[in-house]
Amino acid sequence: MKLHETAREGIETIREDRRYGARELSLLALDILADVVETSTTAEPTRLLGELRRATTDLESVRPSMAPIANAVRRVQADLPGILEASGGLLELKKDVLQRIDEEKTSIKESTEKIVDYAAPLLSGKRVMTHSYSSTVLEVLLKAEGSVPSVTVTESRPLFEGKRLAKRLSAAGIPVTLITDASAGHFISEVDIVLVGADSILPDGSVVNKIGTLLLALAARERGIPFHVVSDTYKWAERVELEEKGPEEVSAKPLSGVQVRNVYFDRTPAHLVSSIVTELGVFTPARFSSAMKERPTKT
Amino acid sequence: MKLHETAREGIETIREDRRYGARELSLLALDILADVVETSTTAEPTRLLGELRRATTDLESVRPSMAPIANAVRRVQADLPGILEASGGLLELKKDVLQRIDEEKTSIKESTEKIVDYAAPLLSGKRVMTHSYSSTVLEVLLKAEGSVPSVTVTESRPLFEGKRLAKRLSAAGIPVTLITDASAGHFISEVDIVLVGADSILPDGSVVNKIGTLLLALAARERGIPFHVVSDTYKWAERVELEEKGPEEVSAKPLSGVQVRNVYFDRTPAHLVSSIVTELGVFTPARFSSAMKERPTKT
Repeated sequence: MKLHETAREGIETIREDRRYGARELSLLALDILADVVETSTTAEPTRLLGELRRATTDLESVRPSMAPIANAVRRVQADLPGILEASGGLLELKKDVLQRIDEEKTSIKESTEKIVDYAAPLLSGKRVMTHSYSSTVLEVLLKAEGSVPSVTVTESRPLFEGKRLAKRLSAAGIPVTLITDASAGHFISEVDIVLVGADSILPDGSVVNKIGTLLLALAARERGIPFHVVSDTYKWAERVELEEKGPEEVSAKPLSGVQVRNVYFDRTPAHLVSSIVTELGVFTPARFSSAMKERPTKT
Repeated sequence: MKLHETAREGIETIREDRRYGARELSLLALDILADVVETSTTAEPTRLLGELRRATTDLESVRPSMAPIANAVRRVQADLPGILEASGGLLELKKDVLQRIDEEKTSIKESTEKIVDYAAPLLSGKRVMTHSYSSTVLEVLLKAEGSVPSVTVTESRPLFEGKRLAKRLSAAGIPVTLITDASAGHFISEVDIVLVGADSILPDGSVVNKIGTLLLALAARERGIPFHVVSDTYKWAERVELEEKGPEEVSAKPLSGVQVRNVYFDRTPAHLVSSIVTELGVFTPARFSSAMKERPTKT
């Protein structure tokens, strides 16, 4: 079955994206499913479901370090047979599927609001260091404006996503300092907590996030300050692959005989993580892992 | 007393330099003293010594994170009264001072050769990670070519000195991988030891080096692998100041409302340092510190 042109373009956008975190890209993945519904020209309900299945399969594997993309589209996919059964024809099916996709997007956005509420007491009065760009961290800090005295942001090589976060925070009136990634060990002495997002969280409680996160966690432990992760439960994943991108992002000119590596994510072990702040509350990594393993497999 | 134009230019070169480590700049500082001798137009031996004292004073403070520059020029300075007393006139004085400066340069170079010999057994068969550019590390690795299976080099923001080291090592036939500074925590699992230079070593055994060094030391400890520092005893300093440079090196465009910090050095505490390899042998930080405190104040 051929994938819709718009869906294909959207999937390539997610594959090539370097600006957004896993939460924003999972919302975009749901938009792609909605596009498939809206642009489908088939007259057959089962063919529409086939088209959605094809898009879901592609989206599941498009960003192997980002569990929430696969989780979001799979959750919609799991409900499609029931929706088909209950629907009274193609038009009603389309409406019901779009509504299900919309519910999923709403659920992700509501999760972020709950995370903001749970995170607030951990941040109050604290000088924060964060790494790269996380939309959840951004939401948390924007809401905490006035109660957070300052935020130190690492630039996040190779593509400097940290600069974008720094500008957003500064525009909101939060005092912001931008530093190189290499400086995190030095400037950790000028903050009270580290707060980062996550792209995925693994069964052992370890956190997959933009490369460099692990070094901030090590610096926090050395300094004896908390290392908090904000992440909705969509980030849970049995396993992930740490994506590697092109060397030209690190060095525009090839260096004769030098291998240039550009791994995009690292894994911070659970023992370096103070807490994982989710829409269900604040957990230690071990408690979070138990909670995820004990929950029903389907919501 | 007015400083010679060539000396002034040389001192500014050292102040603005971002390419070289403390060892190379201390050799350059000695060249500046030699320039003062060679370009001086005074007929008075005591005036020549005054000119040298003025240059020494400027050089002592030109790079406050780099102890060896001050140490090198002070050691020459300390011998000048004796040389003046023993000399039979201006020409002989100039010749004797130039010889003393040359001895000092030879001593620094011989120290490096001894460090190379002492470091060799620590490196043999080991995959090495290093940070930024250190001429001592370069010498050690060039000599170890054939016995070191690979070297992983961090790029070293903001000015990417690591690229220069990577190119030099690659040209010598050593397999080299270049990574971003943020990646050090991830790639530490692919090496056996960390080897860095030093700009200064403090009485508590802590090591001042290019910013980012501390994070490599934390990664090495987490991974349980050795963190070795190669440094001659010229690097010993009672205290240093961690230099900060212009924000434009980090972000060419100013970011509205965002403070950009560009500290150039960090301090790695002694408890993260496995050994300090000097021209006198291999020390733990505590033993190195004792040895430095016990030695005669003047050589």
